[in-house]
Amino acid sequence: MRRVAVVGAGMTRFAEHFDLGIKDLLPMAVAECERSVDKGFDRADIQAAWFGELSTTDGFPAGILADSCGLEDVPVTRVENACATGNDALRNATFAVASGAVDVALVVGGDKVRESSTRSTFWEWAGMTRDTAWDYPLGLVAPANFALHVRRYLHESPATREHMAMVAVKNHKHAVSNPKAQLRFEITVEQVLNAPMVVEPFGLFDCTPQSDGAAALLVVGEEVADRYTDNPVWVRGVGLGLDRVMHQHKPDMTTFPATVRAARQAMAMAGITPADIDVAEVHDCFTGVELISYEDLGFADRFGAHKLVEDGVTSVGGRLPVNPSGGLKGKGHPPGATGVAQCVELFEQLRGTAANQVDGARIGLAHNIGGPTAVSAVSILSTDRG
Amino acid sequence: MRRVAVVGAGMTRFAEHFDLGIKDLLPMAVAECERSVDKGFDRADIQAAWFGELSTTDGFPAGILADSCGLEDVPVTRVENACATGNDALRNATFAVASGAVDVALVVGGDKVRESSTRSTFWEWAGMTRDTAWDYPLGLVAPANFALHVRRYLHESPATREHMAMVAVKNHKHAVSNPKAQLRFEITVEQVLNAPMVVEPFGLFDCTPQSDGAAALLVVGEEVADRYTDNPVWVRGVGLGLDRVMHQHKPDMTTFPATVRAARQAMAMAGITPADIDVAEVHDCFTGVELISYEDLGFADRFGAHKLVEDGVTSVGGRLPVNPSGGLKGKGHPPGATGVAQCVELFEQLRGTAANQVDGARIGLAHNIGGPTAVSAVSILSTDRG
Repeated sequence: MRRVAVVGAGMTRFAEHFDLGIKDLLPMAVAECERSVDKGFDRADIQAAWFGELSTTDGFPAGILADSCGLEDVPVTRVENACATGNDALRNATFAVASGAVDVALVVGGDKVRESSTRSTFWEWAGMTRDTAWDYPLGLVAPANFALHVRRYLHESPATREHMAMVAVKNHKHAVSNPKAQLRFEITVEQVLNAPMVVEPFGLFDCTPQSDGAAALLVVGEEVADRYTDNPVWVRGVGLGLDRVMHQHKPDMTTFPATVRAARQAMAMAGITPADIDVAEVHDCFTGVELISYEDLGFADRFGAHKLVEDGVTSVGGRLPVNPSGGLKGKGHPPGATGVAQCVELFEQLRGTAANQVDGARIGLAHNIGGPTAVSAVSILSTDRG
Repeated sequence: MRRVAVVGAGMTRFAEHFDLGIKDLLPMAVAECERSVDKGFDRADIQAAWFGELSTTDGFPAGILADSCGLEDVPVTRVENACATGNDALRNATFAVASGAVDVALVVGGDKVRESSTRSTFWEWAGMTRDTAWDYPLGLVAPANFALHVRRYLHESPATREHMAMVAVKNHKHAVSNPKAQLRFEITVEQVLNAPMVVEPFGLFDCTPQSDGAAALLVVGEEVADRYTDNPVWVRGVGLGLDRVMHQHKPDMTTFPATVRAARQAMAMAGITPADIDVAEVHDCFTGVELISYEDLGFADRFGAHKLVEDGVTSVGGRLPVNPSGGLKGKGHPPGATGVAQCVELFEQLRGTAANQVDGARIGLAHNIGGPTAVSAVSILSTDRG
């Protein structure tokens, strides 16, 4: 299989961009991606694009991306896979480049979640991220559906709400030094525990904010990578895993089988084990989800995730920093953009230019778990060609 | 690039399936695809799936496909590209198989357009197939936006409403012998011309019906094809083209640049010219669109499309039969399924088993043009490995 490199990466700030629409955010991310390409870059080089968007704010997604970014004559595929959309967009672009059909591909993720100028997208989003006939009428939208998982996890494992709070504290702390992050302030365990309850066991500070934003990656075949940079980052593995949509079909609420499957695929493709990961961006839409994901990704033994936060293993400075960007919790979560932005962070980490740099990082992992806890996508990037 | 074969193909009847939901239609199509595999087939062989769906009736599309079809542990990517969704789903699966990352892939397209048990999807669909801020408030939904193109085409070319009617008559005639078609009755030019006007120049019989349905293809790498059949059909070319979304940005309304681009890509990949095509499924959402597409696909000279229908060239029995299945006009048009179903028809045509068989067909082309006339996807299938 032809090797695939990331040679450029950029993103907007994640925020409540009440003054910007998706047509503003997408070109901002693409322009920053363009500026990041060491040896310069002409948009006419782009042969195909993949666009991850969940909420379809302003109309026909593929065309809105192409038009707003001036991508004349570039075919764009919109990929939608709930909150795993961003990493699945990269996965599909990777296949196209690996096949040899495309040499230079653009991957963009974006979402405009806060009030849109044209219409509300809430119902559409709700429909696209769960079963509308069964789970939705039962109220199993996020965060309620994730809360079922985490409540059971707290019951079965030694983890407590304090451990969840430590995840929030860590990710907020990481976000402070990231100029792209939405919530750039530190919080304390006490603040998390005393915050208003959203749905047990999630208080306000256990939940990701709602965010608008976009992110972009330039992905190329190995023969052309040196046209753009002498310092590429390699896409070593991509994985996508599914689980049953409806919660009555999930026999064990304390694990996300979709993540286990996606990680297994991506690591097999990369030829690595969890112990090889130096830095990870993990889908912390709710604090407890980061804990469960440590176990599903193979970073911790079953029901041992709490020890990683207790011991500072997953803080920057620890053995395996998780969410140095601030994660969804601190950086923000425009769903279509999130997975792409995780890879933007890894690109910078692996090139040594991240805002919150992990020393000597050579292999990074990005992870999404989607809406009804039924889909996960994992990408593995590395400084080594493999 | 690794060669890619289609070894199975199946579809539901296209119809107003008031008694069936998307969760019924998808497994029906997959089961028929499974039955079509000459040497038998185990669903556990499927390593990844691509799902083209536009209207998202029942919730999280990727998971609904996996759950309703019993695809445990199969990663599913939902692709959405307006009415070009189906052929773009095949394109993405083709890249994944061609890359070597996937040996056996399932491509499914489906849509439930008529009243859903859970909610209306009309607004969502409208949003996803045009610009909601500009074209949509002007009323430029289908069929009005296509009508602008065809009206100008009638003004500039020698084609008349009679020629458009001849397209409808031809495709209805083809549909009669196709048990999967929705409108299995013949009509006359007079009936078309005298039918109630929908939007000038489209009368009722110039328009595709609204349809529910699903279609599926089994797509595999060349090394494993003979595990499934001695008679594979090869995916020789895939192409995707875009054009500007908003109609004020389209300088020439008498052509669809998206189609020209998609066809150019697919034919270059296949190493063929339009003259090599033996049979084609062309996106006849409105009769005049089939005429314009003859020119964009290179089947006719500019403004010469009307001669093809006048001379019977594109009827079964002619030199280049177009829409032997009945096309969108006669067979029906569940948008996500349409492109996949076109390839189901080509699979049968190229294996000599079609309901309305084109003698000796060796190379077939499938073509979609999407919502705001801003996206087209083209696939080229062949009996020759290439």
